[in-house]
Amino acid sequence: MATTAQSKAEIIKQKSVKYNLQSWSKQGGLNPIAVEKAEGIYYWDYDGNRYSDMSAQLVNLNLGHGNKEIVEAIKEQADQYCYMGPSFAVESRADLAEMVIGLMPDNFGKVFFTNAGADANENAIKMARMFTGRKKVFSRYRSYHGSTFGAGNLTGEPRRYPLEPGIPGFVKFFDPYLYREQIQFESEQAAAAYYVAKLREQICYEGPDSIAAIVLETITGSNGVIIPPDGYLQGVRKICDEFGIMMICDEVMAGFGRTGKMFAFEHWDIKPDIVTFAKGVTCGYVQLGGVAVSKEIAAYFDDHFLSCGLTYSGHPLACAAGVACVRYYGEHNILENVNKVGKVLGEELEAMKAKHACVGDVRYIGLFAAIELVKDKASREPLVSYGGDPKGVMGKIVGMLKEKRFMTYSHENMVLVCPPLIITEEQIREELAKMDEVLGTVDKEML
Amino acid sequence: MATTAQSKAEIIKQKSVKYNLQSWSKQGGLNPIAVEKAEGIYYWDYDGNRYSDMSAQLVNLNLGHGNKEIVEAIKEQADQYCYMGPSFAVESRADLAEMVIGLMPDNFGKVFFTNAGADANENAIKMARMFTGRKKVFSRYRSYHGSTFGAGNLTGEPRRYPLEPGIPGFVKFFDPYLYREQIQFESEQAAAAYYVAKLREQICYEGPDSIAAIVLETITGSNGVIIPPDGYLQGVRKICDEFGIMMICDEVMAGFGRTGKMFAFEHWDIKPDIVTFAKGVTCGYVQLGGVAVSKEIAAYFDDHFLSCGLTYSGHPLACAAGVACVRYYGEHNILENVNKVGKVLGEELEAMKAKHACVGDVRYIGLFAAIELVKDKASREPLVSYGGDPKGVMGKIVGMLKEKRFMTYSHENMVLVCPPLIITEEQIREELAKMDEVLGTVDKEML
Repeated sequence: MATTAQSKAEIIKQKSVKYNLQSWSKQGGLNPIAVEKAEGIYYWDYDGNRYSDMSAQLVNLNLGHGNKEIVEAIKEQADQYCYMGPSFAVESRADLAEMVIGLMPDNFGKVFFTNAGADANENAIKMARMFTGRKKVFSRYRSYHGSTFGAGNLTGEPRRYPLEPGIPGFVKFFDPYLYREQIQFESEQAAAAYYVAKLREQICYEGPDSIAAIVLETITGSNGVIIPPDGYLQGVRKICDEFGIMMICDEVMAGFGRTGKMFAFEHWDIKPDIVTFAKGVTCGYVQLGGVAVSKEIAAYFDDHFLSCGLTYSGHPLACAAGVACVRYYGEHNILENVNKVGKVLGEELEAMKAKHACVGDVRYIGLFAAIELVKDKASREPLVSYGGDPKGVMGKIVGMLKEKRFMTYSHENMVLVCPPLIITEEQIREELAKMDEVLGTVDKEML
Repeated sequence: MATTAQSKAEIIKQKSVKYNLQSWSKQGGLNPIAVEKAEGIYYWDYDGNRYSDMSAQLVNLNLGHGNKEIVEAIKEQADQYCYMGPSFAVESRADLAEMVIGLMPDNFGKVFFTNAGADANENAIKMARMFTGRKKVFSRYRSYHGSTFGAGNLTGEPRRYPLEPGIPGFVKFFDPYLYREQIQFESEQAAAAYYVAKLREQICYEGPDSIAAIVLETITGSNGVIIPPDGYLQGVRKICDEFGIMMICDEVMAGFGRTGKMFAFEHWDIKPDIVTFAKGVTCGYVQLGGVAVSKEIAAYFDDHFLSCGLTYSGHPLACAAGVACVRYYGEHNILENVNKVGKVLGEELEAMKAKHACVGDVRYIGLFAAIELVKDKASREPLVSYGGDPKGVMGKIVGMLKEKRFMTYSHENMVLVCPPLIITEEQIREELAKMDEVLGTVDKEML
């Protein structure tokens, strides 16, 4: 049996390496883990090794693997039908749209469903342009919004470069990235005021009447869980109101409970005009994304042509998974667990920061966290320079974690810790002990 | 019971209209059909009315509704796990990649999976740019490649306009659209030679060394089933070889049996460098698209970073649906049925063209067909002008078909006939009789 199982894994791996192109990689020398089964925060290879999913895959698997309610909902929908085009009324599609709007602030009206986060952002900027009649779109340098041409041009980090020369009218501004800011601020409020004033200045230079939207990850995700200072998002909201600019919050990663609120913008009590979401809406059981828009924008399209569309807008199977998933968050008090376990996560991360020379900063909110690694705590020099890690230092660190079956990924000089939201206090302590050991090795051998 | 069922339908419709934004529409006054069940080429509303799906939804549902093999495969995969990230080896993903490459010409190497056709095209042009080190991309006016910024800038028809000002380096050329060409050619070969020479001339003006790819729907789909004259695609292939340009065939609509071959390019015995696909690979049961690339391109990415990625690349549930679907095409001789029933379709369409004043042209290959409507057969003046139908003439015609439960859609002055590939001769005759009646009404009342 063991031999057979192993052969099966080998066959899958060989085929995979031979025939699949893998995202964001050189393809030579790939050695993927063949996964046989998955349950909760764990998955297993065909040799029975258990791995802890400390990034919830790509920060999408909020409810972990093998959620029976979602699986049952998928099966039931598959028995009714898997697919009907976007022009039909489909129960799961209508129900999920109602549920999503029910979770949004009271200014929200309708949802346009997509397949994922990238096309949610693509369609959000299209709608903002149509609604405002303006073309320019603002977004930030330390951001990732997807890698199709529109979403990839919104993106500020190096994954944008292959899409350049870019789309005319896409303008970048600086992030409120306090840890790497040269100015020392007296308070969060002072920092917020500074960044908002700089943004307003840039908007004036670009021409406020030409700007359709400001797009921001409410809390920056892959680029290091950058949490805005209090007052920042409120200030952006005010600028948008002043100039008639649409405020688009990208909640693809931060939404659906990740930060301890259903959506991250709730932490600052603001109402965006447009919210994009994906990942947590179905936990990726079936692919789904969407664009929720204000009542005002929704009403505009009553008598103006919505020039957006995709074959799989509101895919019935995806929406059925979404209905079950969103219901599960509520019925199982997932937010309560996020806040309870998130507190432990924060305490443990602070302890690591105090203890390890390599830890420059830790940032966390709910179960959304990043550890920023430095060569030197005082100078804050990053462990690897921006956009480059020729010696594969970060890969080695992720590899050391992997040896301990702590599975996550890194970005620039940061390691993400974003487990499924169902993780227990005991489990998180057990996993973070592994991180602590690895950081000790980094202190000793890699600075 | 009838009342309860009707109430349920009403609730679904009301919610749908209240909370969903529907693709390519003004939202005011929408009155969607609420669909209760679907089987084969038919679906039913909650009042028990049966509709014939003569566009296979959005030309994706090649195997019709309720295919048990695909549904079972989805359920089995859901029991194992629904999702693992793109960096893992997953059986359904590896198997489907192998199967897709097995269907491609012998120069093909690997597959990059996406969620649908638009992101397949987005990633195809990214790969062509990386591989060639060039930026410009050629595509045609009468084309639709998706509506995200990259795919939408490839698109030539009006659905491109909201995405402008466009991405630098996207260049359009004319289609071999013989029915609307001012030149009368002696033969298909003469036409092909003309269009190929014009394309070559344009490439020389644009600078061959700056051109990464020529992207074409092998057979143009939504824009009217425009079938290239023999010699055309072979000529494009030669130009690509001459200048080191990647030939990208968009087989999103035409692929997976629609035209009577597994892929449309097989009709002209050419080998593209890159093939994009979606729709028929899973029949939309779960969303899936992909980019198949030549061995040469695949090898390039062994030691060059593939700067493409999406959370749901190679989604396990989608790939499981794909494996069952692709297997079904082979095991049930679907191509044989397409060719058999396609012959009847062609004969019936030719009869309608001979009979009806409003039918300017009929174009068909396999079960992929369009009826082009004109005000006058001699002048070929289109029934509605390009990019505009302010009186909703085409909507009325589609509405008359709908009254007879013949469900399809129109584009410009064309009505598409693209039923599921499992349709029988008897069924197609029965449905086309409805079309014949409606065209009679158009002759009498709308010219």
